[in-house]
Amino acid sequence: MGLLGGSVGLAIKAHGVSGHVCGLVRREESIAECLNVGAVDEATLDPQAALADATLVILCTPVGQMADMTRQLKPHLSPGTILTDVGSVKADVVATVEPIWPRFVGSHPLAGSEKTGVTNARADLLEGALCAVTPTEQSDPAVVEAVEKFWQSLGSRTLRLSPEAHDSVVARTSHLPHVLATALVRTVLGGAKNGEPDFCATGFRDTTRLADGSATMWRDIALANPDAIADAVADLQAELDGLRNALDQKDAAALEEFFAEGQSLRGEWMRRRD
Amino acid sequence: MGLLGGSVGLAIKAHGVSGHVCGLVRREESIAECLNVGAVDEATLDPQAALADATLVILCTPVGQMADMTRQLKPHLSPGTILTDVGSVKADVVATVEPIWPRFVGSHPLAGSEKTGVTNARADLLEGALCAVTPTEQSDPAVVEAVEKFWQSLGSRTLRLSPEAHDSVVARTSHLPHVLATALVRTVLGGAKNGEPDFCATGFRDTTRLADGSATMWRDIALANPDAIADAVADLQAELDGLRNALDQKDAAALEEFFAEGQSLRGEWMRRRD
Repeated sequence: MGLLGGSVGLAIKAHGVSGHVCGLVRREESIAECLNVGAVDEATLDPQAALADATLVILCTPVGQMADMTRQLKPHLSPGTILTDVGSVKADVVATVEPIWPRFVGSHPLAGSEKTGVTNARADLLEGALCAVTPTEQSDPAVVEAVEKFWQSLGSRTLRLSPEAHDSVVARTSHLPHVLATALVRTVLGGAKNGEPDFCATGFRDTTRLADGSATMWRDIALANPDAIADAVADLQAELDGLRNALDQKDAAALEEFFAEGQSLRGEWMRRRD
Repeated sequence: MGLLGGSVGLAIKAHGVSGHVCGLVRREESIAECLNVGAVDEATLDPQAALADATLVILCTPVGQMADMTRQLKPHLSPGTILTDVGSVKADVVATVEPIWPRFVGSHPLAGSEKTGVTNARADLLEGALCAVTPTEQSDPAVVEAVEKFWQSLGSRTLRLSPEAHDSVVARTSHLPHVLATALVRTVLGGAKNGEPDFCATGFRDTTRLADGSATMWRDIALANPDAIADAVADLQAELDGLRNALDQKDAAALEEFFAEGQSLRGEWMRRRD
């Protein structure tokens, strides 16, 4: 029950999607936090109490722990219970969780914040957000449809794609910005000696915002999607090679094209987004 | 008289630094704009009228045009007039402008916005901002001091350093974030074929905000500072090479260190900044 789990709970209650929301938490203190935020009707440390009558279980643990968590929960699940998750990588999670619980279909709601924890949860975090749903050839079509309908009932748009296609796309759209923000911080502030920190202004702050994420969470994401991230980084390095070549040649036309194309592609994306 | 020139004018008047602020503009329509914003006491298309009695002249044109502009203004300047500028690169500007007008000392107020134009000018844009002042061995110490006092009187902090040292630092702290934001947009959205635009969320939006800058302005900045920018890009590529190596090896410790060090360096910078 962190930021995302809490926001899912608040959205379920705001949209009247379920009569009873139960949060399964690890720490005693979390029970009061979840109740105070209003994200759950009940919170407990006891898997049996949380899962006995559950129609739908949503795993909100870090991606590296989804399979272990499923193994721990399995004895308490009813045969008909549908399982999904909110992990930001899918091939690894689906490949390890689906064999344990065949009524599992992976999800990835693209909603987040630099804030973490259930106390920052918001009922509208998922409103209008895209949610990827990643079935396999083994998935029961009725389960896939139920998971999609669940996210839609919270105001999200769903998109169905394979776990592998999902991971390749998010390596570019999500993991690449994150590793770049981190690499930029390390380049500019690591061993800074010429007053660099004083010269970093709002542009630097915004471009590096993503570097302020949990290191262990991002280590696990990187370990779960290493090849696609490496490919995305290589593509970006090719762009930078082209730029360095234009700088070496003092090629005004190539430099203008570099910036103009970037501005135009982003402007088009922003207009579509609005 | 764009965003920066207008904000300097508003700040001069807000702080009572000068009895008369005159804006020299290129287009007839700009006269009313500058007056409406309140950035000037007077605006004119006529260099003679603008410059005849000026104590201090602040060049706010793009960096590629500073020398030409100085040549055009020179016949109208009084012998004692002090000249400075607000350009974001300094070695090139100083090397070409100082020989034309020895009472020139370069400045770079680190204040900006993604918005442009005098209508977005703000009296507090320079408040608390760092302003680099870049004298040479030829600079008259009294002129250097006058330029520093001017920026301080608007609420800015000044830092004196050589034009070359300035350009090396801003290549890392300002130009590198900008070219990275552009390279990221080009990598993710250029020839996008797998639904990438749908998967780009707020993290991508913020990391690429700087890509929405004027392509001709950034072409000129790149042409005025090519070697230092290429060096900064090469340093960043070395960070990315290290990351790809850790991904290839699935080296959990190296991946965690990559993200943890980035988070820690940025956190330290943010705390110092606040």
